[in-house]
Amino acid sequence: MRYHRIPDETIRRLPVYLRGALHLSKQGLENVSSNKLAGMLGVHSWQIRKDFSYFGDFGTPGVGYDLKRLIRHINKILRLNAGNKAALVGVGNLGAALLAFPGFATYGFEIAAAFDADRRKVGRRKSGTLVEDVAKLSSLAERGIYLGIIAVPEETSQQTADMLVAAGVRGILSFAPRYIVAPKRVKVITIDIAMDLARLPYYMSSG
Amino acid sequence: MRYHRIPDETIRRLPVYLRGALHLSKQGLENVSSNKLAGMLGVHSWQIRKDFSYFGDFGTPGVGYDLKRLIRHINKILRLNAGNKAALVGVGNLGAALLAFPGFATYGFEIAAAFDADRRKVGRRKSGTLVEDVAKLSSLAERGIYLGIIAVPEETSQQTADMLVAAGVRGILSFAPRYIVAPKRVKVITIDIAMDLARLPYYMSSG
Repeated sequence: MRYHRIPDETIRRLPVYLRGALHLSKQGLENVSSNKLAGMLGVHSWQIRKDFSYFGDFGTPGVGYDLKRLIRHINKILRLNAGNKAALVGVGNLGAALLAFPGFATYGFEIAAAFDADRRKVGRRKSGTLVEDVAKLSSLAERGIYLGIIAVPEETSQQTADMLVAAGVRGILSFAPRYIVAPKRVKVITIDIAMDLARLPYYMSSG
Repeated sequence: MRYHRIPDETIRRLPVYLRGALHLSKQGLENVSSNKLAGMLGVHSWQIRKDFSYFGDFGTPGVGYDLKRLIRHINKILRLNAGNKAALVGVGNLGAALLAFPGFATYGFEIAAAFDADRRKVGRRKSGTLVEDVAKLSSLAERGIYLGIIAVPEETSQQTADMLVAAGVRGILSFAPRYIVAPKRVKVITIDIAMDLARLPYYMSSG
């Protein structure tokens, strides 16, 4: 099922809700009210109810949301149950950190392949994953990999994106601090770590 | 100046607008319409106008936003002109990547100190920054550092946050995939890389 006219901002918040729901479920809770979830996640409860309303009503009045059902629903909407495989390009410090990062499994992701242009890295293993030559990127589609993660220096990030697009990737997560140009059919999400840091001083100003 | 009743979501978008404005300004442009900025950043133009309306009107009808003025305004709102210094805790792969990351300067940030618990790392330099013993975290306030970046393993992330809070830090950027508990006066922003990745499959679902 494909949902239409869902705002990007709603999609951006769904993983936040999912993480909160997983957290509460792990603590042994079975239900949560939109008020409690909102307080925990720092959003408004009307926002949560509005976001969920796009997908039908998940909640029960007076009881709140059944956590297991909520988790199942969000996973389904975001298509996180498919055992999504991603290819990492760039096994420098950041790439190595990503390969060792335990958080991907939470959302059903696996970094199934890693690539680097540096011959000294190719053929070695990092956190169990074999580092392959970037020239082998073209094999992604036949390996069932449609997600790419860019962790190369800024200068080669666009070129890397072009190679991923040519290899049939349909979604790119980029850590390079620049705009990545890609065809419309390929969704690009750029993580600018400095941009997240840039929100902090505002909140510190009342000191 | 402190602004009241500004939604968190607006504050979250301001650095996005700032990055877009910096990008266009670097390309030699002097003005931009909210429509053009919106198209470039993937938001609605009404959203941009609404976000800016909290701070007075920046634009000129028919001309759009004066980029230099816009950049100055956003920097002022977000307090990004103060030469903000941050302390990094954890100089593993991720920490090393952060120390080498060129993007912080865009927003006026500097990682002014780095700490690690590993004695083998203490006393060495990473990308020019001396790695100090975490025991020295208590000196942050006297060094004018009020921002902390947590890049330690999940297990020690809460303890690290406690130390940063005790050291007088007022804002924390955490990369650990878990909730960080801190007093209300300390703003915590958690970057969950996997959560950003979790948005991609949704957009890939139309194949």
